[in-house]
Amino acid sequence: MPTIGLDVGGTKVLGVVLDDDAAVVAERKEPTRRDAAGLLEGLVLPVGPTLAEAFGLPVRADNDATCAAWAEHQLGAAKGADTALLVTLGTGIGGGLVVDGLLVRGANGFAGEVGHMVVDDGGIPCTCGRRGCWERYASGTALGQQARALVAEGGGTRLVELAGGDPAGVTGEHVTTAAAEGDADAIAVLDGFADWFALGLANLIHAFDPSRCVIGGGLVGAGDVVFGPIRTALADVRLVAPEHRPPVEVVPATLGARAGAIGAALLARQVSPGRRQPG
Amino acid sequence: MPTIGLDVGGTKVLGVVLDDDAAVVAERKEPTRRDAAGLLEGLVLPVGPTLAEAFGLPVRADNDATCAAWAEHQLGAAKGADTALLVTLGTGIGGGLVVDGLLVRGANGFAGEVGHMVVDDGGIPCTCGRRGCWERYASGTALGQQARALVAEGGGTRLVELAGGDPAGVTGEHVTTAAAEGDADAIAVLDGFADWFALGLANLIHAFDPSRCVIGGGLVGAGDVVFGPIRTALADVRLVAPEHRPPVEVVPATLGARAGAIGAALLARQVSPGRRQPG
Repeated sequence: MPTIGLDVGGTKVLGVVLDDDAAVVAERKEPTRRDAAGLLEGLVLPVGPTLAEAFGLPVRADNDATCAAWAEHQLGAAKGADTALLVTLGTGIGGGLVVDGLLVRGANGFAGEVGHMVVDDGGIPCTCGRRGCWERYASGTALGQQARALVAEGGGTRLVELAGGDPAGVTGEHVTTAAAEGDADAIAVLDGFADWFALGLANLIHAFDPSRCVIGGGLVGAGDVVFGPIRTALADVRLVAPEHRPPVEVVPATLGARAGAIGAALLARQVSPGRRQPG
Repeated sequence: MPTIGLDVGGTKVLGVVLDDDAAVVAERKEPTRRDAAGLLEGLVLPVGPTLAEAFGLPVRADNDATCAAWAEHQLGAAKGADTALLVTLGTGIGGGLVVDGLLVRGANGFAGEVGHMVVDDGGIPCTCGRRGCWERYASGTALGQQARALVAEGGGTRLVELAGGDPAGVTGEHVTTAAAEGDADAIAVLDGFADWFALGLANLIHAFDPSRCVIGGGLVGAGDVVFGPIRTALADVRLVAPEHRPPVEVVPATLGARAGAIGAALLARQVSPGRRQPG
């Protein structure tokens, strides 16, 4: 049976229709209506029953990174990895986990909130009200801030050029562009970013022992410019019992911005979501 | 069929025999022979095949905290909690996870190494060679160190008394004893310890979203003197989406030092270990 997946964000709603073979046969993007965006604040869970009542169809609501992890595991970069971790770098850091082929939702559907793992007690203040959360150091937002900090110290000439001469306009994308050109300042910023990313990733590897980590989000498009430093930084981390485990694969996500909607559509067709069916 | 569980440590080997109803019908403790202890270093995984060959019986080897988590889930304090986390406070911090009723082993059997989650970048040097690992702040060892640091600053008179007048002999056990008597210095040390413990526990709650956290290890015997500050500290942590989830239960482990051996004996009887059987 075809299923629909909706990724409802603060600025846009992305919808996909999957056919019986899990191929995307239709896709549509709409801006999120302001009143809807207001309603959505803090209403992630009630949205399911509301839609179910409106349409008279079974509806399943889930976290976007959780859905994306399932999509990557079923159809994308985590395929074939029984225990896999998806980490999405954007405004913050999102996470999704698959353990022994099963999607991990947690007791209340909040598993994978890895961006708010504290990695530096007393560190940078976070939007969540605490300090030192991983996403303050290793998200797309953080990369832009780290670049602007370098510019504020007098470096990053090429970064400012790419930002049209506006130091405040320097973003993570400018960093990856400049690094791809060989710009030393941009490469240094990415190296520092990669150290923070690897620190948090190693924490999660210690906790879950995945065989594969899939990295998603806008930065992934930059390819080896980002993945090279990340792999180098992770290889430098001393994991427990390294001699008894193969290196963890770190690979880019392949489903892009549609991963969440595709995962939602995949989950919608499961009779018993999150549990492997016998046989 | 009865099964045997062995918890092989650096100083002792604890063995239990479970009958068909998973009751402990025999138990034995032996010091670990020096030559065996030497062999065991770095040989956690090969020990299974070695024993299997020696005895001609099927053998399953697993991490002690992983086994303990399974035992607590099947017979102890995590019973009935589909998604549960076991954290054991001792020399270091061990961890074990149950997700949707399944034991999480990880791709290489190393899931649950939560003691080496970095929570304070650049912080206290750890035995693992890195800095800022959680177990440097929130293990039984750490509690003793925090108490001795207070003594070094001129406090903790009662702690030194309990240690027979030897400041260097102050341990975590002296802290819980003094705190139970109402000693203000000991209570202050425990409060600081509880903040660190809650910080790491909140990281794991963000990652896994368990409904119950079971705390094991020697400190557990102290009861509310330890659990009170831990629960207070955790309640003070601002989790993501607190309004959409009930507070996580934090409870003491109930199987004590036998948990690992019992878990091993339980796992030995599973046809397909770590996977729920259909039906």
